[in-house]
Amino acid sequence: MTDLGTVAVGQSGGPTAVINASLAGVIDAAREASSSVLGLRYGIQGALHDDVIDLTGVDTAALAQTVSAGLGSVRYKLQPDDYDRIITEFDRHNVRTFVYIGGNDSMDTANQVATVAEQRGLPLRVMGVPKTIDNDLPFTDHCPGYPSAARYVAALVRDVGLDCRAMRRIYFLEIMGRHAGWLAAASRLARDRADAAPHLILLPEHGWDEQRFLSAVEHAYRTFGHCVVAVAEGFQLPAGGANLGITDAFGHVRLGGIGRQLAALTKERLQLPPEPMTDILGYIQRASSLGRSAVDAQEAHAVGRHAIRAILGGESGKMVTIQRRSNSPYEASYGLVPLTEAANQTRSLDERYILPDQYDVAESFLAYLEPLTGRLPVPYRLY
Amino acid sequence: MTDLGTVAVGQSGGPTAVINASLAGVIDAAREASSSVLGLRYGIQGALHDDVIDLTGVDTAALAQTVSAGLGSVRYKLQPDDYDRIITEFDRHNVRTFVYIGGNDSMDTANQVATVAEQRGLPLRVMGVPKTIDNDLPFTDHCPGYPSAARYVAALVRDVGLDCRAMRRIYFLEIMGRHAGWLAAASRLARDRADAAPHLILLPEHGWDEQRFLSAVEHAYRTFGHCVVAVAEGFQLPAGGANLGITDAFGHVRLGGIGRQLAALTKERLQLPPEPMTDILGYIQRASSLGRSAVDAQEAHAVGRHAIRAILGGESGKMVTIQRRSNSPYEASYGLVPLTEAANQTRSLDERYILPDQYDVAESFLAYLEPLTGRLPVPYRLY
Repeated sequence: MTDLGTVAVGQSGGPTAVINASLAGVIDAAREASSSVLGLRYGIQGALHDDVIDLTGVDTAALAQTVSAGLGSVRYKLQPDDYDRIITEFDRHNVRTFVYIGGNDSMDTANQVATVAEQRGLPLRVMGVPKTIDNDLPFTDHCPGYPSAARYVAALVRDVGLDCRAMRRIYFLEIMGRHAGWLAAASRLARDRADAAPHLILLPEHGWDEQRFLSAVEHAYRTFGHCVVAVAEGFQLPAGGANLGITDAFGHVRLGGIGRQLAALTKERLQLPPEPMTDILGYIQRASSLGRSAVDAQEAHAVGRHAIRAILGGESGKMVTIQRRSNSPYEASYGLVPLTEAANQTRSLDERYILPDQYDVAESFLAYLEPLTGRLPVPYRLY
Repeated sequence: MTDLGTVAVGQSGGPTAVINASLAGVIDAAREASSSVLGLRYGIQGALHDDVIDLTGVDTAALAQTVSAGLGSVRYKLQPDDYDRIITEFDRHNVRTFVYIGGNDSMDTANQVATVAEQRGLPLRVMGVPKTIDNDLPFTDHCPGYPSAARYVAALVRDVGLDCRAMRRIYFLEIMGRHAGWLAAASRLARDRADAAPHLILLPEHGWDEQRFLSAVEHAYRTFGHCVVAVAEGFQLPAGGANLGITDAFGHVRLGGIGRQLAALTKERLQLPPEPMTDILGYIQRASSLGRSAVDAQEAHAVGRHAIRAILGGESGKMVTIQRRSNSPYEASYGLVPLTEAANQTRSLDERYILPDQYDVAESFLAYLEPLTGRLPVPYRLY
């Protein structure tokens, strides 16, 4: 069996509700192999600045329950000079195992470290552990962190949808997702019946059709008495947007995100009684303890553990993946994919889940999502 | 014992997480008295437009679990012509009891209906049931809806605080509260130790001291590596704000709320490494199922029930109040205050909870808040 040496582990990119569960999984598995664990503070920067914490004795059960990145996180692109520094620091601490927990950019970082180690013939094994609420890593059924963020967003859309229903509001909610609409799509889980929010879901994967958009907003408002639009922040209007007439109406005011632009367009074109309102979910949606999914927390721990076990089995230069085995009961197993393939690729929402002629996602998406999030409690309605 | 006749009940103003529990309490108590219950859709407008629902057979346990205003809500100021219409409609339905669940404006509406009924010698009893996340009704220890919103805001500030800590961010979160800082103050519950968010709490009750503000932001960032500012939307900078230099720096761009203004000021004056970020909680904070407090849900039901029992005891023209009897264990009883006194008054955050020389609230505020919200789970930290 491979000698792990000291295990160095870091967290990178945006925090999630369960990234500490993955860290706990790494620590637990390393302890089982009698290895000591060194936590890199602020991701790879911890290796560059020798800013490290001994994690061998931490309470992993408590850590796994705590949201956000316990070691601190970072968005940092490696520079050519950095490799020598990292190798030297790792060597000084007898690090022979490096586990990096993160999203696309972090897998790229892990891949670069793995490549340099291999080129130089160093006894350093590297493993990537996926983490992202964007769910946009390839080769894995889903990414730890996504189910919890998805559950939180869906619960929140259900709640605010009931508020909008009571107040007969037209409302735009901007949800994270610059390139892929997975998280905005998760709002679909809130719609427990035809008249329930969200009435429109706009994804980066959707094209712009102004008439379809306006018709759908007007239909929802006139039919259901309210209209809730879930829009991914990466949804784009055609360049400039001036042809939509909203620049003139608002002078040189710089509009907020896409939600405000759509609200302004709705106001100008439809002139329905309520003033369309907009909220932007922002940072609160990605590491919320209130949305944590039990499946997500369990899997996040398992992928961390799997990384160490794979290295013990002789692997290196891979990212751990989740493979769905069954939906009912939900079962998954864990696999590996080369970091060279996983790094720098993004996965859009599967085409089969996008309804091409509507601003919505297909019902079949729920079969994908619900085993990961669980169902939401069903509201009781008086009308 | 007073004959209730048919009980008409309406919900008014912004929805909360527990306003349906109050509605359930009214229905349950009316049923016990063998009265039928008529729900007014969209508050008093339901009486004006004969838009009503028979609530006698609803599942009150399920209703009480569902957030937002199940009957629909409204913000509507009564017009002189409206009284005759309301009286006529109530008479037609044999309504002799009117219960209105709402905040300041709604208590004013209830008061006006009660006054007209009394002036005309009509057999109509009126009772107000308090509801507001703003917690700004007088004569009651607190308002149903506030503890749940407070718990939600606090949990969210704790979570996003851990995110900001991991990412070494300077962050402004704008929380509801135009005139009173009760909800923003609740973020204090998130601070489980000295370095934890929120590092500053800015309330409408606080004055502006630019140097104090900037020093506190800089201190938090340099000492704790991050800074989270919870600011009530009603916190105000001096008129114009031009003397703060931010109008020039941003040309004629209309800034968002106070959070963005403070972020812009921080950026310009302190020039610390991170770009200060801002989120506005908006509509998601007031009727979240995820923050529901058990005490709040129970009390919301109890005040609804108390309204009916008070009328059975011969009362009218009053608002139900909550009186705190003990903090440990927490115990409360219910009382009444004349609507004429409760209507149109707002209650600011008690002075003793405001630290005059700091942008913060006093530790003693937790003794007020925690019995209502419960404690939050304590995060496990690695550094």
